[in-house]
Amino acid sequence: MIYLDHAAATPMNEKVLEAMKPYFLTDFFNPSAAYLPAKKVAHEYEEAKGIIAHTIGAKATDLVITAGATEANNLALSIAESWDNGRILYLVTEHDSVRKVAENHNGVSINVLPNGLIDMADLREKMTDDVVIISIALANNEIGVIQPLAEVSAFIREVRFDRLSRGVRTPIYLHSDASQALNLLDINVARLGVDLMTLNAAKVYGPKGVGALYVSHEVKLKPATYGGGQERGLRAGTENVPGVIGFAKAVELAHEHLNGNRKKYARFKKILLQELEDYELINKTHTLDNFVVLCYNGLDAERLIYLLEDRGVYVSTGAACAASKGVRSHVLTALGLSESEINGSLRLTLGETNTEEQIHEAARIINEVVKTERERTHG
Amino acid sequence: MIYLDHAAATPMNEKVLEAMKPYFLTDFFNPSAAYLPAKKVAHEYEEAKGIIAHTIGAKATDLVITAGATEANNLALSIAESWDNGRILYLVTEHDSVRKVAENHNGVSINVLPNGLIDMADLREKMTDDVVIISIALANNEIGVIQPLAEVSAFIREVRFDRLSRGVRTPIYLHSDASQALNLLDINVARLGVDLMTLNAAKVYGPKGVGALYVSHEVKLKPATYGGGQERGLRAGTENVPGVIGFAKAVELAHEHLNGNRKKYARFKKILLQELEDYELINKTHTLDNFVVLCYNGLDAERLIYLLEDRGVYVSTGAACAASKGVRSHVLTALGLSESEINGSLRLTLGETNTEEQIHEAARIINEVVKTERERTHG
Repeated sequence: MIYLDHAAATPMNEKVLEAMKPYFLTDFFNPSAAYLPAKKVAHEYEEAKGIIAHTIGAKATDLVITAGATEANNLALSIAESWDNGRILYLVTEHDSVRKVAENHNGVSINVLPNGLIDMADLREKMTDDVVIISIALANNEIGVIQPLAEVSAFIREVRFDRLSRGVRTPIYLHSDASQALNLLDINVARLGVDLMTLNAAKVYGPKGVGALYVSHEVKLKPATYGGGQERGLRAGTENVPGVIGFAKAVELAHEHLNGNRKKYARFKKILLQELEDYELINKTHTLDNFVVLCYNGLDAERLIYLLEDRGVYVSTGAACAASKGVRSHVLTALGLSESEINGSLRLTLGETNTEEQIHEAARIINEVVKTERERTHG
Repeated sequence: MIYLDHAAATPMNEKVLEAMKPYFLTDFFNPSAAYLPAKKVAHEYEEAKGIIAHTIGAKATDLVITAGATEANNLALSIAESWDNGRILYLVTEHDSVRKVAENHNGVSINVLPNGLIDMADLREKMTDDVVIISIALANNEIGVIQPLAEVSAFIREVRFDRLSRGVRTPIYLHSDASQALNLLDINVARLGVDLMTLNAAKVYGPKGVGALYVSHEVKLKPATYGGGQERGLRAGTENVPGVIGFAKAVELAHEHLNGNRKKYARFKKILLQELEDYELINKTHTLDNFVVLCYNGLDAERLIYLLEDRGVYVSTGAACAASKGVRSHVLTALGLSESEINGSLRLTLGETNTEEQIHEAARIINEVVKTERERTHG
């Protein structure tokens, strides 16, 4: 098996499971309980949150733990409901967990340039006084393009200053889904100027069902759930202690190997681009080191996926949740690709399961499958 | 260590961890991905949901997986928002995850009788045409009292018939949080007549951070989160596959040992009630076999907890999340207990970690601690 779909899911690192194990079996106490072993668990939970927060330059108390990125994105955008007709701006290439919430709440999409980067002119044009939040993923989940968030936040500072000078009291916040970027970029919320940031354990070799929303102390969110008052009162429910311990371990490992992994993926990508034949590269610049998005114009990528699967190579056409519904990629559409180009596009996302040998082998198999398909469809 | 707080948290069964392990490490695929190993995971996820659903007489497609009971309760009660001024009725002894949502949404509490059972006359009196949902836990989390849900649902059928005859179009649903009861009662949603039911893996020796809401097909909920459309579109986000596999295994084990455990806990309870001294039993009837709520009138239960902890016995005063905030139990208040009685009340909840030897030992230690405290406070 050659797994090239690490953007869809990652296996959990064995060390992560080892870190979680005691919290499943022996240190299982409810962190809210009054006795010492429970208080110890509560302390270790906070420490784990601190480790996760630290990797983005934040503190444990800045994080609201969620069940994943989708919940975190929904919670972040709920800030728009706190303001009358509060408007959401979002990049047209955002994940469905941003797009669909935005569409339900007076949202306006911002265009991207053909290279996938935000069209700053379009953002400036669509900035109105009712905009409360702008949501832009740090790195896109289908093409890995890294957005210039610092540039966006500099513009937001301008907007804030302008609103202040005109007596407009609506606040404006920058949210970024950093799910795909967390184990591949050195992230600092202050440097990027974001007020809200989504993190996801499942994309960084941690457990599924665990994510976090970084919430700057200036942002006053309404609770996602009411109950026992956990997570600063924003998200009640008994804490998922093993999940958060695992998330922290995964983040620790990711940052220990950040530079090594980046170099490795860059090398693997170079091999692929050299050895693959008859393709066009879609994500040419400003992209995560592990994303290779290829266009085989004229071929049917869904057929390629099945043929590759038969040869033990697992790839995708885009977001797994969109792929399963047979919807054409809104991301590739936004880049201006034609229908035929979109239908022929494959997403390869490299990761920790891959070896250099696998990469050569994958290139060979993809070439063969593509060649056979070319012959079949032209013949 | 003698752990007598199984209502707050349960250790995960080793067999549950073994069942989850492959889904962490090797079968880690995103269930929405297009290739076969991912589809296999999607199938196994649905099968696991089927196992969980089966224990309450439901089907896999009736369940919406959540991150726990609090989220499930919040989602269930959100139905009130779909109706103009839709009113929530809830038992006054409900958990905070029901009470606080209800208080935010035009909720009215129903009284309990001194034995903790629902006051049906009060329910009849408070039934108005704007009531959309009634929330009553199958078994209370502080005193283990089991409510006569079939009686409540029979009354709801009357209300439906009456509304129909008068042309009132507001629907009315029965929701029940069965978190504490799932591994101690034989539950059937049709027999009980509930439309929505909350389940929680963490209370039945499964993983933390996993729960479910049973939603009858007649109930049209609004989504809790928007995104990739998972869980019937009601709760988007990549599925927590290992969590749900673990939940299913925990439920399977619980039902395999249901009768044996009930008998064992009933025996342990009898031993405690015989060997303990100088107490009054609060939950005398209609209670789960593993709940023993004791009142040591005149003593400070919080001090008892610390003294017992020093001797290796872990108990609580009530709900862990309420206890951590030093709030007086609203459940014991609703039973009509005096302040002094409430302050002297301890909750012991038996579970799979306990042996008969431990129960004798716990009775001995509690007696000693209580005696010392009586002497200290009277001396």
